[in-house]
Amino acid sequence: MTLRDTPLGPGAEFDAIREMLRRWGPRAQGIGDDAALLDVPAGEQLAVSTDSSVEDVHFRRGWLTPREIGYRATVAALSDLAAMGASPLGLVSALAIPDDWRDALHDLTDGIGEAAERHQTPIVGGNVTRGAKLSLTVTVLGAVSRPLPRSAVRPGDQLYVTSELGASGAALDALMNGRTPAPAQRERFARPTPRIREARWLAAHGATAAIDVSDGLLAELAHLAAASGVRIELDAVRVPVADGVPRDLALRSGEEYELVVAGRALDTVAFANHHGLALTAIGVARAPAAGESPGVDIAGRVARERGHDHFST
Amino acid sequence: MTLRDTPLGPGAEFDAIREMLRRWGPRAQGIGDDAALLDVPAGEQLAVSTDSSVEDVHFRRGWLTPREIGYRATVAALSDLAAMGASPLGLVSALAIPDDWRDALHDLTDGIGEAAERHQTPIVGGNVTRGAKLSLTVTVLGAVSRPLPRSAVRPGDQLYVTSELGASGAALDALMNGRTPAPAQRERFARPTPRIREARWLAAHGATAAIDVSDGLLAELAHLAAASGVRIELDAVRVPVADGVPRDLALRSGEEYELVVAGRALDTVAFANHHGLALTAIGVARAPAAGESPGVDIAGRVARERGHDHFST
Repeated sequence: MTLRDTPLGPGAEFDAIREMLRRWGPRAQGIGDDAALLDVPAGEQLAVSTDSSVEDVHFRRGWLTPREIGYRATVAALSDLAAMGASPLGLVSALAIPDDWRDALHDLTDGIGEAAERHQTPIVGGNVTRGAKLSLTVTVLGAVSRPLPRSAVRPGDQLYVTSELGASGAALDALMNGRTPAPAQRERFARPTPRIREARWLAAHGATAAIDVSDGLLAELAHLAAASGVRIELDAVRVPVADGVPRDLALRSGEEYELVVAGRALDTVAFANHHGLALTAIGVARAPAAGESPGVDIAGRVARERGHDHFST
Repeated sequence: MTLRDTPLGPGAEFDAIREMLRRWGPRAQGIGDDAALLDVPAGEQLAVSTDSSVEDVHFRRGWLTPREIGYRATVAALSDLAAMGASPLGLVSALAIPDDWRDALHDLTDGIGEAAERHQTPIVGGNVTRGAKLSLTVTVLGAVSRPLPRSAVRPGDQLYVTSELGASGAALDALMNGRTPAPAQRERFARPTPRIREARWLAAHGATAAIDVSDGLLAELAHLAAASGVRIELDAVRVPVADGVPRDLALRSGEEYELVVAGRALDTVAFANHHGLALTAIGVARAPAAGESPGVDIAGRVARERGHDHFST
C-alpha cells in the first residue's frame, strides 16, 4: 500500500509518519488504520514476540549509525521468530525519539526498512512519540506449523549451534573499552542475521527445540535446560568461535542471533550444503540424576557464567 | 499457564519477569519462549496495533498511580482493536523502567493484569528493560471478521459517537494546570473503557467504518474524512458532552477512547438498550464538491482545531 492509499491527518507527528511511510514505500502495508489486518495461513499458528532496543541500555550513541540501530533492532526481533521456527508475516515498530535524535529519524527508518525488506517482512503498523532516550520496540508476527519451543529438549538429544560465536561480543567488548572493533566483528555486531530460513529447515529435518543466542550461549543453554527439565552437557571446545575471539568470551557473547537447536541426530552436512553455514554439535542433553536440578555442565563443571542481564547492577 | 510451566533463567531481569508472571497468574499464557503462539479463528483476520505511553509525554508522575498507568496503557491499546471491530486474542507489553520506578513495577504489573482480565485478553509476552523514563508499549492482537476501516465512510453515511466526550480532557486540563480534577472526570481519565463489545455489535448492525477518540473528536473526524475521501459535516451541538465540560473542550478532548462510527442508519435505541450506553448521531458525510478537499465542517465553518500532536512544539 502506498502513501496515497493511507492518508493521515494533519500535524507534525503525522508528518513524521508520512515521511517514514514514503521511505518504506511498498514495504509498508496497511498502515493508517487503528489496527493492521493480516491473514494467518490456514493450519498455522500465529507467533508473536516483542523486543526493545534502548539507548544507553542496549547500545550507545556513536557505536552504531542510526541506520544500523534501526536495522539491528528489527533483526533482533525477527530472530525471536526464527527461534520458534516461524516465518514473518509482519512487524510493528514503536519508536521513542528524543529531540536530539529527530534528524536521525530518516536513517533509523531506512534501517528498519532495509531489515524488513531483506527478511520479507511487511511493516504493518507503528507508533512514534517523543522520548528522553532513543527507544525502538519492534513487535514481530509470524506463522508457524512446526514450533520449536524451549521446553522440547529431550534426554538423549544433541545440541547444535549455527555458524560461529563471539564476533558480536568481541565488538561490544572493544566499544565498551573505547577501542575500534575489527571490521568483521563490528559488522556482525551491527548487522546480525536472523536465521529464519535455517530454523524452518531445521524444524522440517528433526529439530524439536530452539533458542536464539541473544543473552549468550551459556545463558541460552540454561534457559533450554530449565524449560525442558534436563541437564545439558556442553562440550565447550566444540563451540565454533569466530577468528581472534577468546573462547570464554564466545561462550558468553550475546546478541549473536545464531540458533541453538536440539534434536536426535541432525544432518549437519545437509544443513551446511543447503545454507552455506555450519551447524555444529556442541553437547548433549540427559535426564537429571536423583536430587539434581536442571542446568548446564561444561566438561563436568557447573556453568556459573551468565548472559547479559539488563537489571543487574 | 502458571509460572511453574514457564521457567526462566537466572538474573535480576528474569526475577522481575518471574514476579510479573506470578502477579498475572492465569492471565499470562505461553510466556517464556522466544515467541508466543496463538490461534486465530478460521475465517477471521488477525488485527494488530501498538501503542506507547511515555512518562512526561503522555502522562506525568503524580497524575496517576502506577496501577492506573498500567491499566490505562493497556486499555489505550485495546481501544485500537475496538476501533477495528476486533476481539482481543492477546497482548504483549514492553516496559522500560527507570531506576526510580523499580518499586512501582508490581503496581504497574497489576494494572496491566487488571485491564487484561477485565477485557479477557491473555498476556502472551513481553519485554522488560531499564530506561530513562517510564515507558509502556502495549501491542494487542485480535481477530476480526467484519473490519471497520477508517476508509469506509461513504457519502450519505451518518456519523455517531458512543457515550459522551470531554471528561478525560477536563481532567487533563485540571492536572496540567495544577488543579485537582473532579472525581468523575479523573476516573474517566485514569480508567477509560475500550468499546470492544460495542464495536462488534455495531459492525454486526450496519456500521462500516470506525475510529476511536484518542486524539480528540475533531482530529478523528479529520482522519475519517481524509481516509474516506469525504467531507464530514459535524453538528457540534449534538455531540454529547460530559457534565460540567465546555463544548469546545469536549470536541478536542483526547484519550476518551469512545468510538466514532459511520453507517447508513444505525439503530441508536437498540444500541442503548443492548449496551446501556448512548449512541448519538453527530453528523453526516457527503462527497466533496468539485475542487473541494476531504475534511470536516462544523455548522458550515471549516474545522481548524487539531487533536493532540506529540511532535508539535
